[in-house]
Amino acid sequence: MTSAPTDTSVTRPRSEFDRDIAVARAEERSDELVGTLSDGWRVGGGINGGFQMSLLGNAIRATLPAHPDPIAMSAYFVSPAVAGPVTAAVRPQRLGGRTATVAADLKQGDDVRLTVLATYGDLDSFPADDVRTTATPFDLPPRERCVPNTMAPDDVQKMAPFLQRFEMLFHPDEIGWAVGEPSGRGQVTAWFRLADGREPDPLALLLAVDALPPVTFDLGLPGWAPTIELSAHVRAKPAPGWLRLRHRTRNVAGGMFEEDCEVWDSADRLVAQSRQLALLPR
Amino acid sequence: MTSAPTDTSVTRPRSEFDRDIAVARAEERSDELVGTLSDGWRVGGGINGGFQMSLLGNAIRATLPAHPDPIAMSAYFVSPAVAGPVTAAVRPQRLGGRTATVAADLKQGDDVRLTVLATYGDLDSFPADDVRTTATPFDLPPRERCVPNTMAPDDVQKMAPFLQRFEMLFHPDEIGWAVGEPSGRGQVTAWFRLADGREPDPLALLLAVDALPPVTFDLGLPGWAPTIELSAHVRAKPAPGWLRLRHRTRNVAGGMFEEDCEVWDSADRLVAQSRQLALLPR
Repeated sequence: MTSAPTDTSVTRPRSEFDRDIAVARAEERSDELVGTLSDGWRVGGGINGGFQMSLLGNAIRATLPAHPDPIAMSAYFVSPAVAGPVTAAVRPQRLGGRTATVAADLKQGDDVRLTVLATYGDLDSFPADDVRTTATPFDLPPRERCVPNTMAPDDVQKMAPFLQRFEMLFHPDEIGWAVGEPSGRGQVTAWFRLADGREPDPLALLLAVDALPPVTFDLGLPGWAPTIELSAHVRAKPAPGWLRLRHRTRNVAGGMFEEDCEVWDSADRLVAQSRQLALLPR
Repeated sequence: MTSAPTDTSVTRPRSEFDRDIAVARAEERSDELVGTLSDGWRVGGGINGGFQMSLLGNAIRATLPAHPDPIAMSAYFVSPAVAGPVTAAVRPQRLGGRTATVAADLKQGDDVRLTVLATYGDLDSFPADDVRTTATPFDLPPRERCVPNTMAPDDVQKMAPFLQRFEMLFHPDEIGWAVGEPSGRGQVTAWFRLADGREPDPLALLLAVDALPPVTFDLGLPGWAPTIELSAHVRAKPAPGWLRLRHRTRNVAGGMFEEDCEVWDSADRLVAQSRQLALLPR
């Protein structure tokens, strides 16, 4: 459907994340970018949604030289994505000024997998000295007291190769679901970094907000929880080092639940917030 | 630009809200609906964003007979809307099944004012008996102890005719900003109903989540706070009667703040949640 991409990247990808979100302009369709969803980001039958957001976010970044950073992205997952080639189409809605807004689709063949609206800007140009946040970091024990994702059984690792892309160290009080003893709090908290040590940046935060297991696991509701909508806000460029993630739900009702995610960086800043609405596992 | 609309409504609008969100199919463009933004929903120089969401939400509803209720809507405000004619274009992304997803634009002439992604469904078909919410209603004194919006000075009422569309009764501890004494909590809580007594429904909830003054007023930051993105989730059809709304922010940083809104109905159910990212007033 598309010819071999013209590789316009000027730097050698430094990590599996950078390699796998890479896009290039399609030769014969100047308004589309092409990339590949690697099987390594699969969870069960589909490619993880946050990873799709990162790849599409990278395609948007490539079209907005003056506005390199995702600030807000609202993602609607239209059909399950599988490993293989993808095309990204980006349609500017408003350019110029402090922020730019676009609509964008990630497609496989003629099927839209993910459609988003997003606002980008240059986070370095935003004021850094007006922090008046009242949010405080959540409780998370030191890493040596947390439970690593590498303890997941072989069959789980095989079902979700996605897990091997990260180091995740779970709060010991919120990992009981892994052995059939969910806490019932509706909360999953973990230390998080990319497995190959690649440092976090705004594109990686789009992945981070959808990386932990569904918070419904902690409510004793295992199984796939299809996302209806996920909106992520990137509030600052994260400092190098480990991230801390918390997924939480407060409102399980009507066959749906909301999942709020906070991402804190090593400098104790709330660098990303997201909320998704998802269907309860059936 | 468009000829007189063919009115296809079968019921007489019962309220100013129903009258003002009404849309009709344009004769010569079957893929577009036409309506009018009434000056009554203006705040300062622009028409309120939540009202725009309700009108566009009504246009989406008109195109999705099997999926009448907004469940999730993510709104990006592309340019300020003024009183006058609007057209709504709805592009299906995924139809069929339990939910349908669309992209939609609200335009004035060739200028897009608002672009959204939205998922609709039939809330009556969602389970009603699986409520496991841990959220609890916020503190709000009885209505007779709250401060009504009708106390706003004449010049404010004139600047924002929007205010006259509602009865809003503010928490007495969170209205100090109106007399130059903001609480600094970053919270605004109020009783809320449409001024003409029209009962709440899912479309009115899209309006409710953006109806209160910006939460930055309570931080001593008066002025317009432009919305970057607002995502609303409608979780249930509201019961008749007063709604209770709370806007709150926890993370003021980088020249931006998030504003979370909860809407509780008279049956003590959390019927809508929203989050918006906005720029701090300059």
